[in-house]
Amino acid sequence: MTAPTEPADHLWLHFTRHGERADTTPVIVRGEGAYVWDEHGKRYLDGLAGLFAVQVGHGRAELADAAARQLRQLDYFPLWGHAHPAAIELGERLASSAPGDLNRVFFTVSGGESVETAWKLAKQYFKLAGKPTKHKVISRSLAYHGTSQGALSITGLPGAKQDFEPLVPSTRHVPNTNFYRAPVHEDDYEAFGRWAADQIAQAIEFEGPDTVAAVYLEPVQNTGGCFVPPPGYFERVRKICDDNDVLLVSDEVICAFGRLGHQFGASRYGYQPDLLTVAKGLTSAYAPLGAVLISDRIAEPFLRTSTTFMHGSTYGGHPMACAVGLANLDLIEREGIYRHVLDNEARFKSTLDKLLDLPIVGDVRGAGYFYGIELVKDKATKETFNAEESERVLRDHVSGSLFENGLYCRADDRGEPVIQLSPPLICEQAQFDEMEQILRDTLTGAWKLL
Amino acid sequence: MTAPTEPADHLWLHFTRHGERADTTPVIVRGEGAYVWDEHGKRYLDGLAGLFAVQVGHGRAELADAAARQLRQLDYFPLWGHAHPAAIELGERLASSAPGDLNRVFFTVSGGESVETAWKLAKQYFKLAGKPTKHKVISRSLAYHGTSQGALSITGLPGAKQDFEPLVPSTRHVPNTNFYRAPVHEDDYEAFGRWAADQIAQAIEFEGPDTVAAVYLEPVQNTGGCFVPPPGYFERVRKICDDNDVLLVSDEVICAFGRLGHQFGASRYGYQPDLLTVAKGLTSAYAPLGAVLISDRIAEPFLRTSTTFMHGSTYGGHPMACAVGLANLDLIEREGIYRHVLDNEARFKSTLDKLLDLPIVGDVRGAGYFYGIELVKDKATKETFNAEESERVLRDHVSGSLFENGLYCRADDRGEPVIQLSPPLICEQAQFDEMEQILRDTLTGAWKLL
Repeated sequence: MTAPTEPADHLWLHFTRHGERADTTPVIVRGEGAYVWDEHGKRYLDGLAGLFAVQVGHGRAELADAAARQLRQLDYFPLWGHAHPAAIELGERLASSAPGDLNRVFFTVSGGESVETAWKLAKQYFKLAGKPTKHKVISRSLAYHGTSQGALSITGLPGAKQDFEPLVPSTRHVPNTNFYRAPVHEDDYEAFGRWAADQIAQAIEFEGPDTVAAVYLEPVQNTGGCFVPPPGYFERVRKICDDNDVLLVSDEVICAFGRLGHQFGASRYGYQPDLLTVAKGLTSAYAPLGAVLISDRIAEPFLRTSTTFMHGSTYGGHPMACAVGLANLDLIEREGIYRHVLDNEARFKSTLDKLLDLPIVGDVRGAGYFYGIELVKDKATKETFNAEESERVLRDHVSGSLFENGLYCRADDRGEPVIQLSPPLICEQAQFDEMEQILRDTLTGAWKLL
Repeated sequence: MTAPTEPADHLWLHFTRHGERADTTPVIVRGEGAYVWDEHGKRYLDGLAGLFAVQVGHGRAELADAAARQLRQLDYFPLWGHAHPAAIELGERLASSAPGDLNRVFFTVSGGESVETAWKLAKQYFKLAGKPTKHKVISRSLAYHGTSQGALSITGLPGAKQDFEPLVPSTRHVPNTNFYRAPVHEDDYEAFGRWAADQIAQAIEFEGPDTVAAVYLEPVQNTGGCFVPPPGYFERVRKICDDNDVLLVSDEVICAFGRLGHQFGASRYGYQPDLLTVAKGLTSAYAPLGAVLISDRIAEPFLRTSTTFMHGSTYGGHPMACAVGLANLDLIEREGIYRHVLDNEARFKSTLDKLLDLPIVGDVRGAGYFYGIELVKDKATKETFNAEESERVLRDHVSGSLFENGLYCRADDRGEPVIQLSPPLICEQAQFDEMEQILRDTLTGAWKLL
């Protein structure tokens, strides 16, 4: 009951070193368009769209109005055996825009819960389908799929897991599609893609196909810095899944709703998932909401029998969140935001590519409004930072300097050191230039510290 | 992409048999006070407060206004290394009202995420405290703690778990405090409470104290039908935890914020938890939000070192949800809602106790605005329903008839058959009478079917 000195000292922040925090935590108080402001009135370009989420930008009054309107009408009711109009309408809208026969929608409250839900559904589906031993999941090295203990088990970041083990003991990880550091076929992108896909086939073979339920893949993998799929990769993965009766889960918590210029990332790369997980951009983060889109094949045994999918949550498909989701999709459509991304992504990329003249910038990669910039000590050898350099240069200098210079984004060293950019989808050349200039300034300073 | 005939057919409901649903799913469209309305204009008394959550009742315009105001000011920013005013203020408010030294607040998006967070925190805490082998959790039979795979592992409902195993392999379950079906000391409540507490000591001993991190208990256990703690139970559990250096987690996702007439259930029963999990009533369910309250002892090694608690989520502590939480606590305070519960709980209980004249009503139990009514075939022998009767009488008749008669609540047979009541905390004698009359009518009919 004793109050610490600073009010913020009651707050335990996420993924934060508190021993170092003291009273230096930035307090963000306002947002508008592509910018946010701190308590001292200082402005920052939101280079991360909050957390890969605020697609339509900050301060959209019509999303606030949609939330209030729904809360006045029906503030809350669960989707347990009952429905409400906003969930019905949003479910219909998601199903009608999804690739193929992803016709059923299970609403959740977050991306992590979507990932948990898809795994649980895959496990029960195979029991109903007469293959009760299929329950494992294959995912990729470094890939982040959430922090609840099922989702965390799928996540491919050992450092985020080791303090919490044992987790769900049924996941295996395979190499991702980091072509910049391809261990083989480093001069043949398609051959590298075939190799990367075949790592999944090998993992299924090593585990035993009769034990594997699903493969989880992001269209473009975020952690590690925007690993895009090589040509033919998803086509080959789809075939591997079909050959082994393994479900392909497209984890689009980040990539859906325009991050790659399409409603769904699978549509950009032309593959058909069995399950598709979303959250974040579905509401532009104005309210917590996620969903799992489910193919007819997976739904069928649940519709045919009296079996219940024994899963649910209090806040999955909250009426207010669904109403915000509908208003968000209206806004995206009316303003042609996906078209805007497709029209501008080349300009965004070429603006960031200018940074390749700096000795510290090894690679700029990504698609849509979603880029990773990998930092190196030596461009020719691709030598990366050691732990001390990562701490001193990336964490201490780059992170702080970017923010100090007015750019909120993320310097991440869970894989090789990268700067992650994922701004609101309304950004234009002015913001691309602003990012490039701040990055140039900070990275020029960082190079001197190496 | 083919649309099923009914729009709602795109929606996959939670914990629902879809094979039987067809077009009979109730669609709830409006709420006001203690009532909700369906699409045909029919009114229902909300006997479950949505899902044990809508403390202040439906249709509160000031909570809608608080959401919209925050969304216009700052729609979204994550709590990853940054803060925002609403989370700071709500964190301070929770810490200042919590029992003892629960001075740190980790915000989540839901109760399930709070349960996951507390477990992960306990695991990492013991590694920092030099006891790295302590990671297991003890919880009680039938207790529901969530559906993500870590929380589900803690949940004591085999039927909710078996299709999804293996889960996190580190949980053990002990008997709950169901005195109505006490296997020993059936005529000595305090002796039964000592026995029940000692089951926890025995489980810790059998697992090995050096492997056990935490015990999860609800102040009043929901599933199974409102199992209240016998006198001395929590005092003894607290001592057992202290003797074995095991953390006591008070899972108050249902019981906090007035369900038992106090801000926190632990305050009602006078025990001191090390960690306390909340959600639901924190916002009266107007927005998805949860939290873990953390004692100084657990926080200390994270504050002293450069260690990061490697955990977080996109929507934990959403600005709009925190603003709604603050407005909800204001409203509760202004209207004296906890006092109202304490003043009326005896009337609520005695009104429900009238049902004990029915041959099918075996037990009425609970506290505050939180009751379970256990149904039996024979009051003298306490013989319960068999599976066929549970299906035919409880699921087919009671559930449907209560709803048909205008009472939304829950008939549950995950343990013995019970009807669960947990209405908005604004309810008064008129609503108690309405519940009693509808229950009397339905249960009289049910008896004829046995």
